[in-house]
Amino acid sequence: MNPPQTEPFCPLRWNGECLLLLDQRRLPAAETWLEIDTAGGVATAIRDMAVRGAPAIGIAAAWGVVLAAQRGGGTAARDALVTLAAARPTAVNLHWALERMERVLAASPQDLLLALEAEARLIQGEDLEQNRTMARLGADRIPSGSRVLTHCNTGALATGGIGTALGVIRQAHADGRLASVHATETRPWMQGARLTIWELSREGIPASLVTEGATAHLMKRDGIDWLIVGADRIAANGDTANKIGTYALAVLARAHGAKVMVVAPVSTIDMRIESGEEIPIEMRSGEEILRAAGLSEAPPGIAVENPAFDVTPAAFIDLLVTDRGVVERPSREAMQRLFS
Amino acid sequence: MNPPQTEPFCPLRWNGECLLLLDQRRLPAAETWLEIDTAGGVATAIRDMAVRGAPAIGIAAAWGVVLAAQRGGGTAARDALVTLAAARPTAVNLHWALERMERVLAASPQDLLLALEAEARLIQGEDLEQNRTMARLGADRIPSGSRVLTHCNTGALATGGIGTALGVIRQAHADGRLASVHATETRPWMQGARLTIWELSREGIPASLVTEGATAHLMKRDGIDWLIVGADRIAANGDTANKIGTYALAVLARAHGAKVMVVAPVSTIDMRIESGEEIPIEMRSGEEILRAAGLSEAPPGIAVENPAFDVTPAAFIDLLVTDRGVVERPSREAMQRLFS
Repeated sequence: MNPPQTEPFCPLRWNGECLLLLDQRRLPAAETWLEIDTAGGVATAIRDMAVRGAPAIGIAAAWGVVLAAQRGGGTAARDALVTLAAARPTAVNLHWALERMERVLAASPQDLLLALEAEARLIQGEDLEQNRTMARLGADRIPSGSRVLTHCNTGALATGGIGTALGVIRQAHADGRLASVHATETRPWMQGARLTIWELSREGIPASLVTEGATAHLMKRDGIDWLIVGADRIAANGDTANKIGTYALAVLARAHGAKVMVVAPVSTIDMRIESGEEIPIEMRSGEEILRAAGLSEAPPGIAVENPAFDVTPAAFIDLLVTDRGVVERPSREAMQRLFS
Repeated sequence: MNPPQTEPFCPLRWNGECLLLLDQRRLPAAETWLEIDTAGGVATAIRDMAVRGAPAIGIAAAWGVVLAAQRGGGTAARDALVTLAAARPTAVNLHWALERMERVLAASPQDLLLALEAEARLIQGEDLEQNRTMARLGADRIPSGSRVLTHCNTGALATGGIGTALGVIRQAHADGRLASVHATETRPWMQGARLTIWELSREGIPASLVTEGATAHLMKRDGIDWLIVGADRIAANGDTANKIGTYALAVLARAHGAKVMVVAPVSTIDMRIESGEEIPIEMRSGEEILRAAGLSEAPPGIAVENPAFDVTPAAFIDLLVTDRGVVERPSREAMQRLFS
């Protein structure tokens, strides 16, 4: 089904009875909407990446709790907290959103369903506002004539709003600051080639698509001024887990004199985790890689390693742009100030 | 058709009337042999990457000249030199092999066809010998317990023998020196995931497959001691053009304390070219990238950049292993000694 277009484009819509999710696995070939009416259905959509992107996962999970309460009341909603939390291990926004829903449950409001629905709506609405704030803060740091590179998809499809890293790129483009935009294809899920390119084209932002392997060549040949990426979890010292390949790009950026900007709401920051060493890295099936090689399983003696995320040490990050302000060269002290 | 298996495995076979080429575009799903009986057919096979790998391209081109002579004598053979030279611009072995065939043509031997056939056979046979020499020289430089990473396919499929970089890995494995072998998938053609993995599995060498994006994570988490790659053209100062992504891996290797070994016969060295700046970089169709994203063409406003090669400056190369010896930290002077 095709729900009516609203502005800004949003891949997660609540229609009062179920959650409508734009199936991101089928983009850009088809715009198919999933109609999900159980918390288990939301967990499956998160695990199978019909919805992805740290902020979008958090929003979807919040709506999952609403669906559970709608069908089975408070008990079902509490069960859903567990099911949903297990869907993907790395992104912390998922847990942050579930903790907010849990607090509503714990307060036992008179109309539980109404209260949960209001909280989910608030989480989604806040995300949009945070996106706008970060877009402005980030774009203001980008000098006119900059050449930018982004990785994975951090746009409207990954959030409740205009995006994190891609929100900054949109704003910087609207401000006329960008000389060029490059996006990686982002193996193995191709979020860059499938989703970012789709969003940039829709927004009328001219861009080039490159493989991850070609990024260093691009940096050396044409020059890149900024690598702008999102985050799935940020440790207390600023170490940042993000889509696999981000760390490689950050090292290459540093080696070529490009700056690195991480754009993420504070809900992405996990102050309980001291450093990136402690962030759990989701390992996904090797089939995601083998498929593109025309294989359904690995040949004898061959293993496939498919970590979904990597950790970029804070030392490689020049700017962390959050909805509560910009942190230069993130450190434990600077990060703590965001929460004081 | 399936020609009888010979040892070592060879993807290019001359049966006296035509060139049998293992179609590398269909591997590993299918082992299909192309029966090519014209020089134009060889040029197409090179352009469309039914045969690839710098040494294998040179050998195929030599047989292309034989085919032309067989059908149309010396005039056709001379025409074929031009057609074949234009098939792919970056690899220099192609031109080197054609120059050898041209010298035979220029000498106007009594039995031209026999002389050309002998020269093509010599080029192919020499390549096998060179592979063996380089495998021994390279493996001797690898300490026991080393963890190695390779990129693209540089094995039997890319050469007339056991391979260049992959030949070194085979030898080092046979010597019991390797703690682990990792291969990149090598976007967009997946030579690593399709071809290298196929060869390693056939040879019984345990290995892991990773995306290019995951290599830095792997270097940081597990450690890599050697990046071992082939080359398509090496300039007089040691700058090395190789499969796109090699330069990124070399920068990442340096940043993580891994050494870089380039393995290539001297026919890959182009002493007429001062530095990597002058090496022509083949740009291929964006479709090769878009296909994996489920797209047949780029969306409006989006360009796709698909350079097939990049240049790794000599400063990033620790060892250049050739059939005439090993060059440490390649420089113009050290390179010249290979030819004196």
